[in-house]
Amino acid sequence: MRRSDVPDVVIRRLPLYLRCLTYMAERNQRVVSSQELGAWVGVSSAQIRKDLSYFGEFGRQGLGYEVAYLRDQLRSILQVDREWPIVLVGAGALGHALVNYRAFESWNYYLSAVLDNDPGKVGQPIGHLRVRPMDDLPAAVRDTGAEIAILAVPAEAAQEVAEDLVEAGVRAILNYAPMNLVLPPEIHVAYIDPIASLQSTTYYL
Amino acid sequence: MRRSDVPDVVIRRLPLYLRCLTYMAERNQRVVSSQELGAWVGVSSAQIRKDLSYFGEFGRQGLGYEVAYLRDQLRSILQVDREWPIVLVGAGALGHALVNYRAFESWNYYLSAVLDNDPGKVGQPIGHLRVRPMDDLPAAVRDTGAEIAILAVPAEAAQEVAEDLVEAGVRAILNYAPMNLVLPPEIHVAYIDPIASLQSTTYYL
Repeated sequence: MRRSDVPDVVIRRLPLYLRCLTYMAERNQRVVSSQELGAWVGVSSAQIRKDLSYFGEFGRQGLGYEVAYLRDQLRSILQVDREWPIVLVGAGALGHALVNYRAFESWNYYLSAVLDNDPGKVGQPIGHLRVRPMDDLPAAVRDTGAEIAILAVPAEAAQEVAEDLVEAGVRAILNYAPMNLVLPPEIHVAYIDPIASLQSTTYYL
Repeated sequence: MRRSDVPDVVIRRLPLYLRCLTYMAERNQRVVSSQELGAWVGVSSAQIRKDLSYFGEFGRQGLGYEVAYLRDQLRSILQVDREWPIVLVGAGALGHALVNYRAFESWNYYLSAVLDNDPGKVGQPIGHLRVRPMDDLPAAVRDTGAEIAILAVPAEAAQEVAEDLVEAGVRAILNYAPMNLVLPPEIHVAYIDPIASLQSTTYYL
C-alpha cells in the first residue's frame, strides 16, 4: 500500500495509539486488546482493528496486540524512530513556550534553529540557541538539515514565511498562525489553532 | 436540525469559514463564491455548499454568498457572538503564552482566572491576573461563570484536574496536555497536541 492511500484521519489517530502503547510499555504491560486501546483513545475496537489493518497484521483474534511490538511498528510507520531537526520561526511568547517544551526531545524532535525578524530579539538566547535573523533562513534550513519547520509568527506574516521555508527546502510545516497556507500539494501542513478549536467547542454549549 | 446531528468534521470547518469571511468583510468584500471560499480554506466548493446546507440556505445559485450576512450567521451558529470567560489551569511557559495571546479577546474569549499548584507561582502576576492556588478552582469557575477551561498542565495531572473542572461546572475543555481525557459524554473536549500533529506530518516525509 502506498503511503498516500491511507486516509488522513487514520494517520492522525496513529500518534494517539503510539502514545498509549508507549505508556503501557513503560509500565511493562505486555498485551493490549483492541477494546482497551480503543477505550484509552476514545474510538471503537472495530476502528482500531480497521486502522491498523492498513499497515499489516499486528494482532491475533482473541489474543490482542503485543504492546512493545505494535509500539515499535507504529514508531517505524510514523518515522519517529529517527531524529528530526526543526527550524522554528517566531521567538515571541509562543516561540519561548515551544523552545521550553520538553516533550519534543523525548519524541526525537529537536529545534535546530530559531529565527525572528525583530532586531530586538535577534542574538538573544532562547533555550540553548540564539535567535537568528530572517536572512539566515536558507542557511539555517540547509546547515541543520531541517525538513520540518514550526511557524509561530503573526497571521499576516505566515504565508510569506511559509513560502520562504518551502524555497529553502522545508517539506512539512506545523502552523500556529491562524491562517490557511496556500502551498504546493507536496508540502504537508498541520494546523494548531486554539481559536478554531474553542469555536468548534462552544458550538455545543 | 439538532446540534448533535451535524457531523463533527463539519463543525470543525466552520471556524475556518468564519475566519475567512471576517477577513473579507474587513476588506469590504461584499460577495464570495463557494469556489473562492473553498480555495481559501482548502476544501472543494461542493464541500462548502454541503457543510453550509446543514444550517439553512445562505447563498443563491450563481450569485454566491453575502460575506457579512454569512459571517454573522456563522458567528451565531458557533455562539461566538457572546463573551466566554475561560479558566486557565497551568501557569508555566505555555500558560504565559496563552495569557499573552491577544487573539482570544478579539474572538470574545477572555481568561477570567489562572490557577497553578506551584506555591512559587501562586500570587504572581500573569497578564492582568494573579495566579490562584488550585484550592480556588471551584470558586474561580463559579465566580467568573466560566463554562470553558484550558488545561495547560503536565500529562500526569491532566485527568485529575479535568475531573475537578467538570465537578466545578465546566462543560468544555481545551486540553493542551498530551493525554486523552476520560470524561462524561456531555463534556466537550478539544485537543491541541503538537507532538501528535508533527507525527502525522512526518509520516508523509
